Amino acid sequence: KRPRELGIPFGILPAGPLNAITDVAGIKIGQLTKVEGAHIRTGVTAILPHGGNLFQEKVPAAIFVGNGFGKLAGVTQVQELGTIESPIVLTNTLSVAAGIEGAVRYSLNQPGNESVQSVNAIVGETNDGYLNDIRGMHVSSQDVIQAIQSAEEGPVEEGNVGAGTGTVCFGWKGGIGTASRKLPESLGGYTVGVLVQTNFGGNLQIAGVPVGEKLGKYPFKDALEKSDGSCMIVVATDAPVLDRNLERIAKRAMMGLAKTGGIASNGSGDYVIAFSTAEGLRIAYRSESGTLENTASLRNDDITGLFMATIEATEEAIINSLFAAETMVGRDGHQVEALPKEQVLEWIKQANN
Amino acid sequence: KRPRELGIPFGILPAGPLNAITDVAGIKIGQLTKVEGAHIRTGVTAILPHGGNLFQEKVPAAIFVGNGFGKLAGVTQVQELGTIESPIVLTNTLSVAAGIEGAVRYSLNQPGNESVQSVNAIVGETNDGYLNDIRGMHVSSQDVIQAIQSAEEGPVEEGNVGAGTGTVCFGWKGGIGTASRKLPESLGGYTVGVLVQTNFGGNLQIAGVPVGEKLGKYPFKDALEKSDGSCMIVVATDAPVLDRNLERIAKRAMMGLAKTGGIASNGSGDYVIAFSTAEGLRIAYRSESGTLENTASLRNDDITGLFMATIEATEEAIINSLFAAETMVGRDGHQVEALPKEQVLEWIKQANN
Amino acid sequence: KRPRELGIPFGILPAGPLNAITDVAGIKIGQLTKVEGAHIRTGVTAILPHGGNLFQEKVPAAIFVGNGFGKLAGVTQVQELGTIESPIVLTNTLSVAAGIEGAVRYSLNQPGNESVQSVNAIVGETNDGYLNDIRGMHVSSQDVIQAIQSAEEGPVEEGNVGAGTGTVCFGWKGGIGTASRKLPESLGGYTVGVLVQTNFGGNLQIAGVPVGEKLGKYPFKDALEKSDGSCMIVVATDAPVLDRNLERIAKRAMMGLAKTGGIASNGSGDYVIAFSTAEGLRIAYRSESGTLENTASLRNDDITGLFMATIEATEEAIINSLFAAETMVGRDGHQVEALPKEQVLEWIKQANN
Amino acid sequence: KRPRELGIPFGILPAGPLNAITDVAGIKIGQLTKVEGAHIRTGVTAILPHGGNLFQEKVPAAIFVGNGFGKLAGVTQVQELGTIESPIVLTNTLSVAAGIEGAVRYSLNQPGNESVQSVNAIVGETNDGYLNDIRGMHVSSQDVIQAIQSAEEGPVEEGNVGAGTGTVCFGWKGGIGTASRKLPESLGGYTVGVLVQTNFGGNLQIAGVPVGEKLGKYPFKDALEKSDGSCMIVVATDAPVLDRNLERIAKRAMMGLAKTGGIASNGSGDYVIAFSTAEGLRIAYRSESGTLENTASLRNDDITGLFMATIEATEEAIINSLFAAETMVGRDGHQVEALPKEQVLEWIKQANN
Repeated sequence: KRPRELGIPFGILPAGPLNAITDVAGIKIGQLTKVEGAHIRTGVTAILPHGGNLFQEKVPAAIFVGNGFGKLAGVTQVQELGTIESPIVLTNTLSVAAGIEGAVRYSLNQPGNESVQSVNAIVGETNDGYLNDIRGMHVSSQDVIQAIQSAEEGPVEEGNVGAGTGTVCFGWKGGIGTASRKLPESLGGYTVGVLVQTNFGGNLQIAGVPVGEKLGKYPFKDALEKSDGSCMIVVATDAPVLDRNLERIAKRAMMGLAKTGGIASNGSGDYVIAFSTAEGLRIAYRSESGTLENTASLRNDDITGLFMATIEATEEAIINSLFAAETMVGRDGHQVEALPKEQVLEWIKQANN
Repeated sequence: KRPRELGIPFGILPAGPLNAITDVAGIKIGQLTKVEGAHIRTGVTAILPHGGNLFQEKVPAAIFVGNGFGKLAGVTQVQELGTIESPIVLTNTLSVAAGIEGAVRYSLNQPGNESVQSVNAIVGETNDGYLNDIRGMHVSSQDVIQAIQSAEEGPVEEGNVGAGTGTVCFGWKGGIGTASRKLPESLGGYTVGVLVQTNFGGNLQIAGVPVGEKLGKYPFKDALEKSDGSCMIVVATDAPVLDRNLERIAKRAMMGLAKTGGIASNGSGDYVIAFSTAEGLRIAYRSESGTLENTASLRNDDITGLFMATIEATEEAIINSLFAAETMVGRDGHQVEALPKEQVLEWIKQANN
Repeated sequence: KRPRELGIPFGILPAGPLNAITDVAGIKIGQLTKVEGAHIRTGVTAILPHGGNLFQEKVPAAIFVGNGFGKLAGVTQVQELGTIESPIVLTNTLSVAAGIEGAVRYSLNQPGNESVQSVNAIVGETNDGYLNDIRGMHVSSQDVIQAIQSAEEGPVEEGNVGAGTGTVCFGWKGGIGTASRKLPESLGGYTVGVLVQTNFGGNLQIAGVPVGEKLGKYPFKDALEKSDGSCMIVVATDAPVLDRNLERIAKRAMMGLAKTGGIASNGSGDYVIAFSTAEGLRIAYRSESGTLENTASLRNDDITGLFMATIEATEEAIINSLFAAETMVGRDGHQVEALPKEQVLEWIKQANN
Repeated sequence: KRPRELGIPFGILPAGPLNAITDVAGIKIGQLTKVEGAHIRTGVTAILPHGGNLFQEKVPAAIFVGNGFGKLAGVTQVQELGTIESPIVLTNTLSVAAGIEGAVRYSLNQPGNESVQSVNAIVGETNDGYLNDIRGMHVSSQDVIQAIQSAEEGPVEEGNVGAGTGTVCFGWKGGIGTASRKLPESLGGYTVGVLVQTNFGGNLQIAGVPVGEKLGKYPFKDALEKSDGSCMIVVATDAPVLDRNLERIAKRAMMGLAKTGGIASNGSGDYVIAFSTAEGLRIAYRSESGTLENTASLRNDDITGLFMATIEATEEAIINSLFAAETMVGRDGHQVEALPKEQVLEWIKQANN
């Protein structure tokens, strides 16, 4: 059962039907999990903003750098042009090259892209090197293509899957998590969906309860422990929002991370990629209609609801990843425990009585 | 009594002796409160990084823009040169001109600055127009100079004082708040101090308890209410940190704000100004020692403790402002209630049992 | 006669009819010149993106910081919201407060703004302290309001006028300059207009001729001279361009400055403010039409012509300021010579034979 | 003969002995050129900031994005941490993955890096798809490693070599170019070196002479031609400069590009990577000396000489690339002519008589 079903409260706004990024219509998720032998614990998660040809029909997008100790590829073109033109790929730190090669090859080979000579791949990563033989670079570009090609709508698997296979979060087993929010019709009825790859540290707090302290796992406990790590966050919305306001939305995801106790430590690669699936905002690679783009987008004044939705969904997606992830043994016998859910639930119930 | 004395928990790290920004040695705070007649409810808060001539002995500094719907003056020079060279002034939105004029006149008139022809004033603001006749522009440059000249070390008054006189936070009376953290000696023993001017909205959470929801005050409750407003945050440290790492510290303050339930709404002017008081990092206006600056500064790898301290102190400073502020009646009979502290405390005690 | 009329070539694209920022329809310029007694040599230049109520009908805008050693006010709100909502004011470094107060009072008092409580003033400056008693702060908010109120369409006075009254450029008398470009109809037929306040140094080059070297005035000639100073650049266009592409346009203005030999020295406050006057892109303060803004804006792919126009017009505007400015004596008997135009023209003619 | 030897003037400051980036002591350049069959015209250029283990001894660095329509990898970590920790690799647009994989594998395999699990690769590119079968992705990670391993000090080959093998600049054959400047001893005696990969368009100007116009090749000549393309610029200095001032230096390189007539068109990926080789500023991966870094770095006030050196060297490096490049036939019989040097020289001599 997911935290919400277990009665853990996460803010004010209602979740979408799947409580997943795929509540934003058209989004497809593909995951490839590599658990091989004693030492390989890694994978790929691909996020497709829509099911068509992304290069020919780009989506408005933005990236916010929460803390830039990471290797996210493709950042500057998104910031300059305000668009994403290929599937978003998440994987491990030393497999970014495989991620780019996979996303590029996939794009070059899509029907209609026969003369394309330039593709901006968006490849994020976190470091799963504690559980995974990361130096072995076990993710191939073919793995990445396979993850992209397997992408589908509907429920999203969470926990030890895809790019979250070998990650560690707040000292417990992390992984992939997802959640969503739906604004009331009076605020536009838009949906915001979030997907996270959790691999970071801090002082874990769930629904306001200082779980990290109660469990005795928190930064600098012995003035020795590190809380490094990273979190990749992808935010999607069907609201018609252009790049500048998408960047503002992306910025709020870090506020959701903060509510879980994350501290964006020096060693974190915390990035938020945000995009809009609104059909009216697609940017055609080749324009048939002349030099103007007609768009209808949300006013600045009406953006705050999306901010709150992003904060809430990010917080819940992170906690979802912790509840879905299971104890894992990996490289060199390293073992990372799952969060002790029973104990945590009890504390949360007490606090909410 | 302040929240901490009432038993409300705020993270892991210990506070400094005053639990105030002035725990960072040498910092002086000056406040001028203007409560005049029925309609004037405003003021000035000045923060002096050190007690000497700031123009002649600049401090390393950085500014992070949480949400830029605000008028903070002086931003780009801080970002370009990495220094602050005058007192930081906080006031109301339409008095930024008075703030600049005051800070500039004060600086021009300091002994030793007789030939100075350029001063970068740092003037932040929030909008106190609900309680204050803000269009009357009742703060003068003389008021600003007076606030600066009255600055002193020691305890800092909180609540309805200085630039916090007329502010509103989470629908309750906001104001000035402050807090500090001291790192263990094994992490350098550095102090981080925070001062806030709270005038923002969101879904109030105190020590993890969803106070906003319980009190029935939260954003979009009737899909009508606005949660606009702003928060000015000043972060000081005696740790030897240069501008790049100060910007990273500043970024973390927004994560502390997030933990109180702030959402950085569209209409927010949320800014964080961070500086280091480390004497070895002072930048002399005129160099006698040639063209090199000798500095000893913290490595990136050792910065995370300061991040956590900043997050914790910011959260606490904001809550401190709410506990110190008292019900106020102002412009056109507008009344803003103080937070119902008894009720809130009871909930927090329940949650922590 | 202006340089173009004297036969000096400036690129490929044709100028507009006035070769001035006011070739962009609707823009109004107001200038107030203060030459009083022996020591006051300063003034105000106001740029109104349109003749209506700017607060009620904001224009899309962006700011690029070429070098941030300056006091430009209003930057972060433009960057966050992508709009300008008040007249742009240029003046001297220590009169930014007067500029803000003037722009704010002007805006508060415009019919229709009776309930406005927040105005983002855009006030740029350069330091005219060599010729002007800048510490005297001789520009008042009333001067600023007067400059705004006197603004009109049509030809723009250049040289020792308004905010350019006391400025120095490449060691010669600088001032206000302006120029424009008109794209061919096949590229949309749009106009780009530029206005500059020139107060910077470097290695002067006119139409490619190394005038600075020939005249023996260039940086570090005696490894002693400073080339500090600043340039404020305002770029206007009637092309329908939103904030992100306006920022890209702004960035190109610095490339035009580079072609004059400017080096953006450490002490420069070089800023570019860009806005679009396209009526279809105005942002209403209060929306009557619901929450969506309908816009038709230029595609990224069609923006390059505007880049080239900006580079050319900026270069020409700077040289125009130098040709219009006349020798001036000011504070403490300081004298700054006008560029020796006859000599310069001869060299340029030689090079182009 | 290089342009300088042919009598073309480039500014005021003297070049270093090699007039190359390798005038900055310790820098090594490695190039691998792939000219195979009829369609492969590409390669790799590697820049090593020093000859040791870059991961263990990082250098201060910064990146400035002139125009972000490009795929430069590694940007955000440089911006966050202010360091470069691996060789800089330049190649073609669709071979960034190979570049990353090569730089990562090279770093993982260096003695001393046996336990390293994270490497930030800096891989820039321009699009050589007109002359090269870029979709074939003919650069391998092994090619990249070979380029790195072949790197050496001394003269740098220019023109159709390495990453410049198949590039086009101002409509003529572009390629690799390099130049340097040495400041007078009174300004510190520092050296600035620049290396460029030229693949961009605009209105070519050499030593101020409008060569593009004279040759009839310039943007929008028939309101049809595109001027897209990109320029990668690497700036090195032995001056002791930290990341913030390195970013400022990087920004000036775009001003040098502007002086050649570049316009940073929409389709440009124009990036500047700047680093300091000063030994006192190396950042050790593991600190033995505790938590403070002792540095002696240039004051802001003394940085302007480096700005001018960067502008001059960048302009010259670009022109050097055009003079060294020779006519090339490539993919599908596409031919790009070398710049008609004789004609150009004649014009320049005329202009300078």
